[in-house]
Amino acid sequence: MTNTRTRILDASTELFRRQGMSGTGLKQIAEVAKAPFGSIYHFFPGGKDDLAGQTIRRAGGEYRDLVLAFFADPDDLVASVATAFTAAGQVLEETEYADACPIATVALEVASTNETLRVATADVFTDWIEVGTTYIERYQVAPDVARRLIIGFITSLEGAFVLARALRSTEPLEAASRNVQASVREAMETEPPER
Amino acid sequence: MTNTRTRILDASTELFRRQGMSGTGLKQIAEVAKAPFGSIYHFFPGGKDDLAGQTIRRAGGEYRDLVLAFFADPDDLVASVATAFTAAGQVLEETEYADACPIATVALEVASTNETLRVATADVFTDWIEVGTTYIERYQVAPDVARRLIIGFITSLEGAFVLARALRSTEPLEAASRNVQASVREAMETEPPER
Repeated sequence: MTNTRTRILDASTELFRRQGMSGTGLKQIAEVAKAPFGSIYHFFPGGKDDLAGQTIRRAGGEYRDLVLAFFADPDDLVASVATAFTAAGQVLEETEYADACPIATVALEVASTNETLRVATADVFTDWIEVGTTYIERYQVAPDVARRLIIGFITSLEGAFVLARALRSTEPLEAASRNVQASVREAMETEPPER
Repeated sequence: MTNTRTRILDASTELFRRQGMSGTGLKQIAEVAKAPFGSIYHFFPGGKDDLAGQTIRRAGGEYRDLVLAFFADPDDLVASVATAFTAAGQVLEETEYADACPIATVALEVASTNETLRVATADVFTDWIEVGTTYIERYQVAPDVARRLIIGFITSLEGAFVLARALRSTEPLEAASRNVQASVREAMETEPPER
């Protein structure tokens, strides 16, 4: 069995992903983690905000690696985009439309209400954009274009998750995928790869 | 002064938009609405879920009209898309990145936890898509393409709001706008308008 601290973070990640932070109590996190309630304050002395901040940063890093893995083959960027959206749709279908981005709900909840956690979500998105830009650059795309394309990709994926989860349909992911693909094709045509 | 029921719905709309539903208590709604606490149960006998359902449907309808107003001139779809995103960015800047979509946060919070409210958000998005499709068709776009483009537009806007609010920047809106514009241009080239 994994250690208590890890089980607590696994539980908070899963609960935040499915229902956000505001609706998730420490008691529920302890129950799902099969951890004594007091252990939360042992490992996270700052309480819920402390745990939430660490959950956001850990889950954000893991999700970045999961998504960017689709951009590992620097051959066909359009195909990589399409595969990433298709995979996200499959995960949604397999999990009854629960498992989408682990930090989006929390990001919206805290954006205007909790500056410390707002900064934690901003740090995660900034990291995604910066690391993602280097991934897109490998497709022979100029840095500023790569940055715009990865931001376009992330925003499309996040927005598609909002609609897909509500509608219980992967159609929004397909439409969003087409948007990003069109944007990539246009960028590639404007600035052809140097091969 | 507007009537009590309207003030309650105005308050819940604004609070849900800024902080989501889970973190918003009826007491806070009554305070912001300057309404007696008991009046909430008078006008919304089903309590928080009753109020939330009516808030989602009313706010969703109003936001649809606000956004689709940018597609009122059936002349240049790319320009309409660009103007809509620019306007959304201006509102964000003017409101310290608080005023974005009124139902997105709630949609993510309830998607896996409250089936009645999940259906309310799905009804709103379905309405946006259906009405939006008829708006896009006026630009001489085939129905299936119009549907894909409006879904792409809505998902891009929603996702850009997530990142823009977290990052306190309009850059995600600009990148998302470029994505949708590229998709529109590609669709228009594939199926040129009959003029």
